[in-house]
Amino acid sequence: MSENNRVVKLAQRPVGAVKRDDFLIEDEPIQDPGPGEFRVKLAYISLDPAMRGWMSDGRSYVPPVELGAVMRAIAVGHVEQSNHPGFAVGDAVTGLFGVQQYAISDGAGVAKINPEQAPLERWVGGLGMPGTTAYFGLLDVGQPKTGETVLVSAASGAVGSIVGQIAKIKGCRAVGIAGGAEKCRYIVDELGFDAAVDYKAGNLSGDLKSACPDGVDIYFENVGGEITDTVLAHMNPFGRIPVCGLISIYNATELPPGPKNLRSILVNRLRMQGFIVFDFIKRYGEAVDALGTWHGEGKLKMREDVREGGVDAYPDVLNDLYTGRNFGKLVLKV
Amino acid sequence: MSENNRVVKLAQRPVGAVKRDDFLIEDEPIQDPGPGEFRVKLAYISLDPAMRGWMSDGRSYVPPVELGAVMRAIAVGHVEQSNHPGFAVGDAVTGLFGVQQYAISDGAGVAKINPEQAPLERWVGGLGMPGTTAYFGLLDVGQPKTGETVLVSAASGAVGSIVGQIAKIKGCRAVGIAGGAEKCRYIVDELGFDAAVDYKAGNLSGDLKSACPDGVDIYFENVGGEITDTVLAHMNPFGRIPVCGLISIYNATELPPGPKNLRSILVNRLRMQGFIVFDFIKRYGEAVDALGTWHGEGKLKMREDVREGGVDAYPDVLNDLYTGRNFGKLVLKV
Repeated sequence: MSENNRVVKLAQRPVGAVKRDDFLIEDEPIQDPGPGEFRVKLAYISLDPAMRGWMSDGRSYVPPVELGAVMRAIAVGHVEQSNHPGFAVGDAVTGLFGVQQYAISDGAGVAKINPEQAPLERWVGGLGMPGTTAYFGLLDVGQPKTGETVLVSAASGAVGSIVGQIAKIKGCRAVGIAGGAEKCRYIVDELGFDAAVDYKAGNLSGDLKSACPDGVDIYFENVGGEITDTVLAHMNPFGRIPVCGLISIYNATELPPGPKNLRSILVNRLRMQGFIVFDFIKRYGEAVDALGTWHGEGKLKMREDVREGGVDAYPDVLNDLYTGRNFGKLVLKV
Repeated sequence: MSENNRVVKLAQRPVGAVKRDDFLIEDEPIQDPGPGEFRVKLAYISLDPAMRGWMSDGRSYVPPVELGAVMRAIAVGHVEQSNHPGFAVGDAVTGLFGVQQYAISDGAGVAKINPEQAPLERWVGGLGMPGTTAYFGLLDVGQPKTGETVLVSAASGAVGSIVGQIAKIKGCRAVGIAGGAEKCRYIVDELGFDAAVDYKAGNLSGDLKSACPDGVDIYFENVGGEITDTVLAHMNPFGRIPVCGLISIYNATELPPGPKNLRSILVNRLRMQGFIVFDFIKRYGEAVDALGTWHGEGKLKMREDVREGGVDAYPDVLNDLYTGRNFGKLVLKV
């Protein structure tokens, strides 16, 4: 082969926001698959909030990316050479292929996808990890009941936008917290949320009260920080708080003060529960079936924010995720 | 009747710790019971952390005590005059009789007790609300499994001391956090906890690590504040945090910063869940039976801290609860 594989490796553990220097981006020869392996040419790489945690050395739900290793990422692409009986040249596949142009795989954790059902980038979008995360987090952890109010933060984001739409499908009032008028308009007018609250408008508590006149039964937590504190004051008795993400603190070098309003957890008998979509891996099929069905029926709208620039753009584009400069599921075109 | 009823009424809503001036303590004529009512002569009044919340005007799980009304309290005493077919003169009873010497009742929420099974003050101690709170909080909310580590704060307190002993009965490692060497010695040597951690010793995180070498599976929360933050760093994956009380903040006029370490809830998939023993009221019989059996078998030790001074001493004695100057369940002798 004459072409090279452009690879993004973790060079040092970032402090605060990631910088270009935290990575080593270099060319390597493209490898041929060994026995039982196949090679994937990546088309789109998923950029996820969890990535910042994967770069850190602390105890977490998966081991950190080792220094010098290819940065971990979910991606989608096509098989272009195969010694694996289950994967043929031309198959569209998704898996943990990393931030690079070509990946060698033995098939572990790789799923075939049907590009006729939805465009390729959508399989690392709403039909990928964000969709399954929303599905299990809202339905299994949150346990919504018809008529309840479901509030979700980062509501125009990849997970939040699907949480609100599933809430509607389940007969709940769906309210989203998002930053800025455009995102708020989007979740109401295009996604069908019942109401939106702009946390940048400076009146979060009052606006929440207007948007959730019967209080909040489920708060789907994506952000942490001050927003959590304010929401806690609006929770109804026996409310549930699935903790999916805490994007406001991922880059923090010193943790901000936590929610003062823990009294609400006691007095309202709230259940605040962290979850990781990987814990539901045996039930992915159920989630993907449901999401695909709703998508086909037009009940689930999705939006990808596809960025150009190839793998070299990874550090800069990733930072947009933590500052809210993306609009839709952030995807890097390879 | 020539005697009077000495009554403690709420005169104003306290700011911070309660003061003598927050109450009106006065004599009233003793009333005769009406049709279907009976009169109780109170013997012991239960002093509970929740009282401070009952005095405040904020939204809570029960309405606040109204200004001018008798201060709410659970108490134990004897029926001395009755027009109620279910309660006879001489019956020992417990119920929400208030901070006073005599109470009129129609029997709602009143239970008869057997003073031969345990001394009278114990029925507003370990066999009363603290015991049922520990029972439902640990077993229903915490869901302990044999071999797990159960950590409880305020461990020498009325609820905490029983939580640790039930944990032992259920085959768990029981570890308590308490303030000072005497309380720590008490929970290990007299109550049979496996280990104690003195939060006043200045090395909470290190001492927790030594006392919980396999991490913490259940943290039974009674205090809130900085202790919570430190404990969160020691929780095992899929740990549970029943939130029973937050005594460190009940008197706060400005809430202290909350736990910074919410990341632990996400990463470790913790379940933090508030509960109120009143929610389990239909199953009180089950709890009292179990507690009575364990008590009879010598597996549950209890300690009351009985204070003299009558109802006039209520404000001062109550404050001892929030500063940790009680040792055992705080009870006021009428």
